[in-house]
Amino acid sequence: MLEELKRQVYEANLALERAGLVILTWGNVSGFDADSGLVAIKPSGVGYEDLRPEQMVIVDLEGKLVEGNLRPSSDTPTHLELYRSFAGIGGVAHTHSTYATAWAQARRALPCFGTTHADYFRGEVPVTEEMTPEEIGGEYELETGKVIVRAFMVGQASRLSGTDGRDARPADYHQVPAVLVASHGPFTWGPTPEKAVENSIVLEHSAMLGAIAEGLSPGLPCISCHLQDKHFLRKHGKDAYYGQK
Amino acid sequence: MLEELKRQVYEANLALERAGLVILTWGNVSGFDADSGLVAIKPSGVGYEDLRPEQMVIVDLEGKLVEGNLRPSSDTPTHLELYRSFAGIGGVAHTHSTYATAWAQARRALPCFGTTHADYFRGEVPVTEEMTPEEIGGEYELETGKVIVRAFMVGQASRLSGTDGRDARPADYHQVPAVLVASHGPFTWGPTPEKAVENSIVLEHSAMLGAIAEGLSPGLPCISCHLQDKHFLRKHGKDAYYGQK
Amino acid sequence: MLEELKRQVYEANLALERAGLVILTWGNVSGFDADSGLVAIKPSGVGYEDLRPEQMVIVDLEGKLVEGNLRPSSDTPTHLELYRSFAGIGGVAHTHSTYATAWAQARRALPCFGTTHADYFRGEVPVTEEMTPEEIGGEYELETGKVIVRAFMVGQASRLSGTDGRDARPADYHQVPAVLVASHGPFTWGPTPEKAVENSIVLEHSAMLGAIAEGLSPGLPCISCHLQDKHFLRKHGKDAYYGQK
Amino acid sequence: MLEELKRQVYEANLALERAGLVILTWGNVSGFDADSGLVAIKPSGVGYEDLRPEQMVIVDLEGKLVEGNLRPSSDTPTHLELYRSFAGIGGVAHTHSTYATAWAQARRALPCFGTTHADYFRGEVPVTEEMTPEEIGGEYELETGKVIVRAFMVGQASRLSGTDGRDARPADYHQVPAVLVASHGPFTWGPTPEKAVENSIVLEHSAMLGAIAEGLSPGLPCISCHLQDKHFLRKHGKDAYYGQK
Repeated sequence: MLEELKRQVYEANLALERAGLVILTWGNVSGFDADSGLVAIKPSGVGYEDLRPEQMVIVDLEGKLVEGNLRPSSDTPTHLELYRSFAGIGGVAHTHSTYATAWAQARRALPCFGTTHADYFRGEVPVTEEMTPEEIGGEYELETGKVIVRAFMVGQASRLSGTDGRDARPADYHQVPAVLVASHGPFTWGPTPEKAVENSIVLEHSAMLGAIAEGLSPGLPCISCHLQDKHFLRKHGKDAYYGQK
Repeated sequence: MLEELKRQVYEANLALERAGLVILTWGNVSGFDADSGLVAIKPSGVGYEDLRPEQMVIVDLEGKLVEGNLRPSSDTPTHLELYRSFAGIGGVAHTHSTYATAWAQARRALPCFGTTHADYFRGEVPVTEEMTPEEIGGEYELETGKVIVRAFMVGQASRLSGTDGRDARPADYHQVPAVLVASHGPFTWGPTPEKAVENSIVLEHSAMLGAIAEGLSPGLPCISCHLQDKHFLRKHGKDAYYGQK
Repeated sequence: MLEELKRQVYEANLALERAGLVILTWGNVSGFDADSGLVAIKPSGVGYEDLRPEQMVIVDLEGKLVEGNLRPSSDTPTHLELYRSFAGIGGVAHTHSTYATAWAQARRALPCFGTTHADYFRGEVPVTEEMTPEEIGGEYELETGKVIVRAFMVGQASRLSGTDGRDARPADYHQVPAVLVASHGPFTWGPTPEKAVENSIVLEHSAMLGAIAEGLSPGLPCISCHLQDKHFLRKHGKDAYYGQK
Repeated sequence: MLEELKRQVYEANLALERAGLVILTWGNVSGFDADSGLVAIKPSGVGYEDLRPEQMVIVDLEGKLVEGNLRPSSDTPTHLELYRSFAGIGGVAHTHSTYATAWAQARRALPCFGTTHADYFRGEVPVTEEMTPEEIGGEYELETGKVIVRAFMVGQASRLSGTDGRDARPADYHQVPAVLVASHGPFTWGPTPEKAVENSIVLEHSAMLGAIAEGLSPGLPCISCHLQDKHFLRKHGKDAYYGQK
């Protein structure tokens, strides 16, 4: 079942590895089928060279195993929480890519320092709050999903950093399809597994640019909302004019 | 028409990608044919692996489509402004290459910190002024070209940084065939599309060297005008003696 | 004799090189056969492209040559001291990999700055004390082993850094299978030569993440013991649930 | 004539490029034949993919062209000054490799921060004095050679940095076969062209390690002379015991 989704998720996992965002077997991509309400995800701890499309595991939104002989990624409950909370997304990717993970470890939101960032993320990429001992000791991967979702709720984003010049507004998960889980690493999402991976690639490049730029100009402010909006809307929404029709 | 120019522009786009200066589909190279007054440029948002020479789009200097089934790069108006303003150039390249883009995001001109830089750029590579909300909200890509051209006009360069020891003199666009668009990234140019790409490669390497050198010696001054001139003129102009005749 | 161990050690040496952790002929991996009490190790100064499984040298735990026509790695006495002191390990790897070596040169323990680190190392990776002129002038490679072993003894680890929030407890060499030899570089170990190499890969990535993260947030503390333990125990011990059964 | 030397120089130039130390056509290796007193060197500005052994240019120690249809590297007078001044060397290499060039641009000697450095260079790698306008305006490439030679003369090295704990002693060019030309980049040498290239590779890695280590521990001192000597003499001289006999 869901052979096409399994193939897409398989291809997206390989694309993640090909982009240099994966060390060993870390990193995973899932895809969501809105019609059936089911999710396909990479099996846990399987090497990329051994991966085959039919090994993708199918679970429902509550995490019940629907199809597959292997255990799903240990991060599955995090993915599911995102599908349950972020209406309309169809793919989620998780990596330990170098610069995005370093920002996450530094426990800092990634400010919008340039148009590369603004082309894909409208405003800063938020960092989550640190998890409490109770969250860590409880259903950890589910709580990881919840702390991500909270980073996109009113009253949260501004408190976390306020560097995007948008004060009290939390990020919109459709316009900022990425997050840095504090002390851990990035999650990205998008309408498809392929787009979630593309967002991981751009997040890593933006995080690298940001780290070097800040080293060159300590205290660097984010770019103006005018420039952020111009670049984001040049590529997204009804007035977009980048690429072919 | 202009098959040879289209082939050159196609090859230069691939060379840009091969040099590791391109992420996803970002980056574009164009070429100018002085006889016909026409420009060939990469189509917008097409992946490098799918690119074919015949897909290069032909436009005139006002941006009117002359030949091609695809939309030209969204940065086309920037390229055209450079061809209209910088007499004698035959190729323009744009990337989001890591270190050059980081300097652009840091909103700093790249000082001439060593002979690698001086071999290709006589003096600092200027950074543009930040664009105003009016420029961003208007014909943005055209205004990007205009802000570049202004960085090479009298009274502009020195105000921007003055780090090259050449005080009030603006850079000469033939001797400094590169610019950093503030918060965005680099543009380079040259007599041919191939040379524009070569300048992008050297700019990226110089920007990397400069970032690391400044980290090792904070407050590092630029090299002397004597040494800058020696290296630049060893490779350029009537007394050049680098390479084969 | 020990053909299977020699093959494993050969493969692990190649894996070390393939992972980009080796410059020239630096780096070596050994394996220990508990039944015979013998060690197989890479010959000294042989290039990776020329290496063959049958060239692995067999020595006993006192360093006596048992089989082989080539000299064993000059670091052999260090490896042997680890096998004699760390009960239950079956492989040791040594590299001059970039970031782990930079931390070693900086004479700093690597704090647990994130979950990538915690997945493999429960607490900071200790740095050894600097060796004395007597140790350097004596049996240097053996003394290198001894200074490593001391870094895992009571009263040592806390004095060295105390950054892991575990005060007076020294690291357990099964739970922190890695060390930074001050001014030199990393050694890692594990149940097999293959696992020792995997630990070298993760140590290098953790060291890179740590260097960048600390640059972004100077004075960054280590992550909480709760999060360290959660990640380590998710992958290790009887309650582990990462990967396939 | 000198076909074997030309082949060695050709191979060494390719090895330099393969090691990732070369950008575009920058970088050159030469070799010296003591019997004939002749030097073989890469032609100027020829791409590595087009290079052939028979294109290597033969000059005498005064720079007179002895054989070849192409112009020799523009850096030839620098190479020749080194062969005239440093008795017993048989190969010279020059690159603009990233980290070594960054230290040169930072105008800093590279301290011996670890054993990787000490394995190849006994003490700091000196940086030259900056060249005067007269030197730059005169026979520039010859003067570059002279400023290198002066960095190894009594009374020079200590004044330049003194970071190696060896105060008034200048470096011995056999024991420190490398230099950083201020604002320019590294030159290395050795008994053969191949060894000169190997020294360039190790210098680049040491320079990278040093830059990162100093970032982690600002003000980091060099390692003790005991440890420097131990590692250097483990690989060099009559008591060396690294590698196979």
